[in-house]
Amino acid sequence: MSQTKFVLDESKMPKHWYNIAADLPVPPAPVLHPGTMQPVGPDDLAPLFPMELILQEVSTEREIPIPEPVREVFKLWRPSPLIRAHRLEKVLGTPAKIYYKYEGVSPAGSHKPNTAVPQAWYNAQAGVKKLSTETGAGQWGSSLSFAGSLFGLQVKVFQVRVSYDQKPYRRALMETYGATCVASPSNETNAGRAILAQRPDHPGSLGIAISEAVEVAATNDDTKYALGSVLNHVLLHQTIVGQEAMLQLEMAGDDPDVIVGCTGGGSNFAGISFPFIGQQLRGGKKRRIVAVEPAACPSLTRGKFAYDFGDTAHLTPLTKMHTLGSTFTPPGFHAGGLRYHGMAPLVSHLKELNLIEATAYHQNACFEAGVMFARAEGIVPAPEANHAVKGAIVEALRCKAEGRSEVILFNLCGHGHFDMTAYQNYFAGKLSDQSYDEAELAMALSGLPSVPA
Amino acid sequence: MSQTKFVLDESKMPKHWYNIAADLPVPPAPVLHPGTMQPVGPDDLAPLFPMELILQEVSTEREIPIPEPVREVFKLWRPSPLIRAHRLEKVLGTPAKIYYKYEGVSPAGSHKPNTAVPQAWYNAQAGVKKLSTETGAGQWGSSLSFAGSLFGLQVKVFQVRVSYDQKPYRRALMETYGATCVASPSNETNAGRAILAQRPDHPGSLGIAISEAVEVAATNDDTKYALGSVLNHVLLHQTIVGQEAMLQLEMAGDDPDVIVGCTGGGSNFAGISFPFIGQQLRGGKKRRIVAVEPAACPSLTRGKFAYDFGDTAHLTPLTKMHTLGSTFTPPGFHAGGLRYHGMAPLVSHLKELNLIEATAYHQNACFEAGVMFARAEGIVPAPEANHAVKGAIVEALRCKAEGRSEVILFNLCGHGHFDMTAYQNYFAGKLSDQSYDEAELAMALSGLPSVPA
Repeated sequence: MSQTKFVLDESKMPKHWYNIAADLPVPPAPVLHPGTMQPVGPDDLAPLFPMELILQEVSTEREIPIPEPVREVFKLWRPSPLIRAHRLEKVLGTPAKIYYKYEGVSPAGSHKPNTAVPQAWYNAQAGVKKLSTETGAGQWGSSLSFAGSLFGLQVKVFQVRVSYDQKPYRRALMETYGATCVASPSNETNAGRAILAQRPDHPGSLGIAISEAVEVAATNDDTKYALGSVLNHVLLHQTIVGQEAMLQLEMAGDDPDVIVGCTGGGSNFAGISFPFIGQQLRGGKKRRIVAVEPAACPSLTRGKFAYDFGDTAHLTPLTKMHTLGSTFTPPGFHAGGLRYHGMAPLVSHLKELNLIEATAYHQNACFEAGVMFARAEGIVPAPEANHAVKGAIVEALRCKAEGRSEVILFNLCGHGHFDMTAYQNYFAGKLSDQSYDEAELAMALSGLPSVPA
Repeated sequence: MSQTKFVLDESKMPKHWYNIAADLPVPPAPVLHPGTMQPVGPDDLAPLFPMELILQEVSTEREIPIPEPVREVFKLWRPSPLIRAHRLEKVLGTPAKIYYKYEGVSPAGSHKPNTAVPQAWYNAQAGVKKLSTETGAGQWGSSLSFAGSLFGLQVKVFQVRVSYDQKPYRRALMETYGATCVASPSNETNAGRAILAQRPDHPGSLGIAISEAVEVAATNDDTKYALGSVLNHVLLHQTIVGQEAMLQLEMAGDDPDVIVGCTGGGSNFAGISFPFIGQQLRGGKKRRIVAVEPAACPSLTRGKFAYDFGDTAHLTPLTKMHTLGSTFTPPGFHAGGLRYHGMAPLVSHLKELNLIEATAYHQNACFEAGVMFARAEGIVPAPEANHAVKGAIVEALRCKAEGRSEVILFNLCGHGHFDMTAYQNYFAGKLSDQSYDEAELAMALSGLPSVPA
């Protein structure tokens, strides 16, 4: 058997993030102010973010240096391994070569610390003392809690009520890192109180939790807001994943033909794919880039490309993106990290430019793929990552049918050790493949804000 | 900051296990047959283990080759990283250098796959179709389930009833790998039925679960038994940990003065320390080797060095070891992997030869150390590993008090992602430092079997 694991020395860890904005043939649409509906300037965002992150949000520089203290923290787990899935290939009987980049080696068990650490660091440098954020299942909340603990920042996490109640383990992880975790909707914000007044037992949503976290940051001078996906600077921070993978595939002597990532807000997908898309935009090899999303929350495959709010209370700026509508509530499924109504504007933009493909699967098919992967490769993927596993297996079986020995790369963005209830439910036959309600989607889309042309 | 993570290329992964039996100044006492009380021969063990493992159990060869297919599996996560705890050193203000070997990167999240994989492979090579084993919290059970899935072996795990009920996540992990998990005591064995007849709601113990698993193997031709610690061949398989650490410390340009590991059955401690003890026995540097055990189950510090059974129903051979008596029931604490009445015969033997030290801490002090570690280094340790963290911090603070810049190495044998309830209880002030019952210990010790001189 040829080499299995491709490991970079920490001296080879990238020193810059890759900014795809530098290579885009057409710039993405501007971000609009929620009050004026006019393009925002850096100062409009200053109540929420430190200036360095705002500048990254709008930068068109191709390479943005990773601060040395951030790289020092990354060294705790980065560079992450690239692994050749020899055993999975054998089980599938495919002539394809399958590689996965494994981000579950981070302290929080997912790719989220790649942006949590720089976000915390830039805030600390700017003299910020507190960060507020939202989380669903808790991957992002625990990652920001970890990052906050390293730089002495107090972190307050608004966790979607239903996850707060159902997944106490990730909450315990946040508390272990010293953060405070509150169930959302809460009584601590106007946004939360308004919703609780209507429905005291509201189960919460990411959109509501974002509203609460943004409100806390906007109304407290010592507090800034941090988001775990969607925004340009968040996607930027994840590009270290794809850059490392590129170096590791060179070590392996291979060049990917297909790159697969799961998409919720878009950050892990951007992380693995943007450096490769950038190569192509600069005249390099054309590859197929496949985004895999949940069929029950299919923003890229079924959403509208339009301006929309990022949150329910409409406190955030508007971005042009694939959206199911900010009032859309997807059915309950286990990949909590993919249950968001919108898609990163940059990922949406690439979709419109036909630079990426998108596909959607229901959760049982994804768990089936995840279990096959676990039994072959050992790692139990997070429910979100199972979508990427499913996408990679589909490509590998296509290669088998076509007799082609393509090179497939996918991002295994996190492990499922905090998600074993979902696996239990899968084995018990309790996971439904319920789709979203077509009428609700139509209503949510009809409520999209109108924006001056 | 100097280098943080020391990573070996997989081509540098050790090709042999290190067998300390080759270097011992005095051989350990023989293993006795439970019926005849005479030393066992290889054939006596044949109903339980394949011959290759039995030969390893009694081998005095210094180097035993790691089979190539086993190394291929190891490459999924090995060599594991050695990490310099720069941030923890800073928090402690110690002049000591602290390194930890991190075994939580394995698919099961602990060091246990290091022996589960070779045990499954040797069994598969011998034509065995089924393995039976016991597990407490589930680290071992999930590791053997993982290994079984790779080599097509059916794995049946008897899990201590109280853990089976309280920790469904690790059970789900075993089932994800395709294993069957049964609460012990069960109705499937004579040993289990006898105990249930006395007490239908018996919470179970490792000793009982071992009896059940051994009975299944002894009475079914197609089934062998696998143990996750204590035995010589299990400790042998873990020596890859210390051998890698030795190469990685060479990369770092350091040589440890103190090596710390937690001890339950003794396997992770042996893994990190035996290669270094071997160096010393062959005339090399003398180092302090510190075993850290739970004060509520202190076999090395309070047990008797005597022949005893490994299980409650007295089906296993007798070994000479530090034991609290096979009927001893430790109070409930969260480091389930350390709740065993005995200690590995080889570790016990080294203690008698004054080649290692032993110390014991209660669980609140260990969790306090674990939380300090998590906030500094990011990784949340398993409750078992917190004992090693505590031991390392004690040494680092001693260095601070003495103004000495010693090099401390410890084994961070697993992550705590499956154990967050324990952290929740710690934060809620619900963890007791209850000690064992002195009268019960005296009674358990008085019941030790008498063995012909």
